[in-house]
Amino acid sequence: MKNVYIIGVGLIGGSLALDIKANYSETIIFGIDNNETHLDKAIALNVIDKKAMLSDITNADLVIIAIPVDATVNSISDILDKVSEHTLVIDVGSTKEDICYSIESHQNRRNFLAAHPIAGTEFSGPSAAIHGLFKDKTMIICEVEKTAFKLQEKALQLFSDLGMRIRYMNPKAHDKHIAYVSHLSHISSFMLGKTVIEKEKNERDIFDMAGSGFESTVRLAKSSPAMWTPIFQQNKTNVIETLNEYIANLTQFKELMEKGDFESVYDEMKDINHIKDILEGIIKV
Amino acid sequence: MKNVYIIGVGLIGGSLALDIKANYSETIIFGIDNNETHLDKAIALNVIDKKAMLSDITNADLVIIAIPVDATVNSISDILDKVSEHTLVIDVGSTKEDICYSIESHQNRRNFLAAHPIAGTEFSGPSAAIHGLFKDKTMIICEVEKTAFKLQEKALQLFSDLGMRIRYMNPKAHDKHIAYVSHLSHISSFMLGKTVIEKEKNERDIFDMAGSGFESTVRLAKSSPAMWTPIFQQNKTNVIETLNEYIANLTQFKELMEKGDFESVYDEMKDINHIKDILEGIIKV
Repeated sequence: MKNVYIIGVGLIGGSLALDIKANYSETIIFGIDNNETHLDKAIALNVIDKKAMLSDITNADLVIIAIPVDATVNSISDILDKVSEHTLVIDVGSTKEDICYSIESHQNRRNFLAAHPIAGTEFSGPSAAIHGLFKDKTMIICEVEKTAFKLQEKALQLFSDLGMRIRYMNPKAHDKHIAYVSHLSHISSFMLGKTVIEKEKNERDIFDMAGSGFESTVRLAKSSPAMWTPIFQQNKTNVIETLNEYIANLTQFKELMEKGDFESVYDEMKDINHIKDILEGIIKV
Repeated sequence: MKNVYIIGVGLIGGSLALDIKANYSETIIFGIDNNETHLDKAIALNVIDKKAMLSDITNADLVIIAIPVDATVNSISDILDKVSEHTLVIDVGSTKEDICYSIESHQNRRNFLAAHPIAGTEFSGPSAAIHGLFKDKTMIICEVEKTAFKLQEKALQLFSDLGMRIRYMNPKAHDKHIAYVSHLSHISSFMLGKTVIEKEKNERDIFDMAGSGFESTVRLAKSSPAMWTPIFQQNKTNVIETLNEYIANLTQFKELMEKGDFESVYDEMKDINHIKDILEGIIKV
């Protein structure tokens, strides 16, 4: 794997660049980004070796698309038009249905692999890129059967070298479930941040009262709107469904409190404590 | 400070015991707890030195009440009845209005200090007790002027020895603001856990899709219902107010999505990103 092109040198693209470089010493990492400052920073930080343009990818062994999901859908066809037969193109976005649908009948569909690494932080841009972000994390792969055998093999080798475990799903199921375990968390966190900021905007020192619990639940409200807006847009139906259920659960909890039924409040929380075992399951896997 | 009695040898009581022991070598830590297993475990873990009964506190230099807030309100009067003139009694619960009100005209009111350490984890019981939990954390003190001068001084020395910074508030303001920066976070987290568990109960392996973002927002859903139910009960009015605002914000966000107004979705998140600076403020203080 000599020529690797990373489109979007942010948190995910940059972290992939770092780990690929660490695993394959002969590789040259080319960075492509609309944001020139990001490219300069990525070079200064040794995240990428060289700047490149989209027109350069004709000689790529691997192209990774790590840009907001709307930009991916807009550019994927153009990218696939340009690549050679042996090029593997991977997208790493948080939604999979629109992207898979958009290149369904592209003549180079076999060059493409739809993937979603369950890894990240609340930070963004090339300075957020870190070594080892993908180690022991899950990579979800969609429609693997539509990718050419040799390129499937190349991708699996790469993910294995990064220390990832693989799960296969169809794009529809991916988008539905990820709405619950990822997208909803982000909205709950953003709205928690909003509720507290609105209330406390004139009393800044009240935040002295905030402890690690608040910090943890509101952490995702630091996430990039440029990345998350198109995710919510593409996964609109599923995300709205999760919001309806979340709002219904909050409302029912509030009604128990209003009625003074604290026995049920206790029982609810006791049941949900079960999340401990589930989370331990995640960590152990 | 020779004889220190910790009522409730859980996360907070146990961690205070550990830090007091580390700071005052001559101190004997007596543990009082309804749960005999907790007491045995606290001794085995060197969290306390000896078991004791409520009737023993007559010779106490310091009594710390670290039990669920309903139990505190039920027992505080009885505790104050028993103590000698030089005994400092501190409660460390997460609500302050009911407790302060309940002993307002107790003849030993001057022995009591209402405090709330902004520190904790999602775990509970004596095995959750850790060294250094209070270092660089905030201790909120309510109605300090109602505590005897000498005992104020003793308490401030103790908190300073634990490495804490002090903030003074009245109980009403404490309960109102803590509903936003702590109690609401817990409910948002519990309900997030509920929404995901309900949806995914028959598909356990879907939790492989959950990453650190979900883990962080749902962490507080591991918290103890026995501790939190009475907190919500005592702070019912304020917590319901925060829930109404939180639900309204979620509903409005959902409606923006339903209308397809993703420009406003973006703007909302951009505004809330401001939480970064606020949280940095907390950490820096």
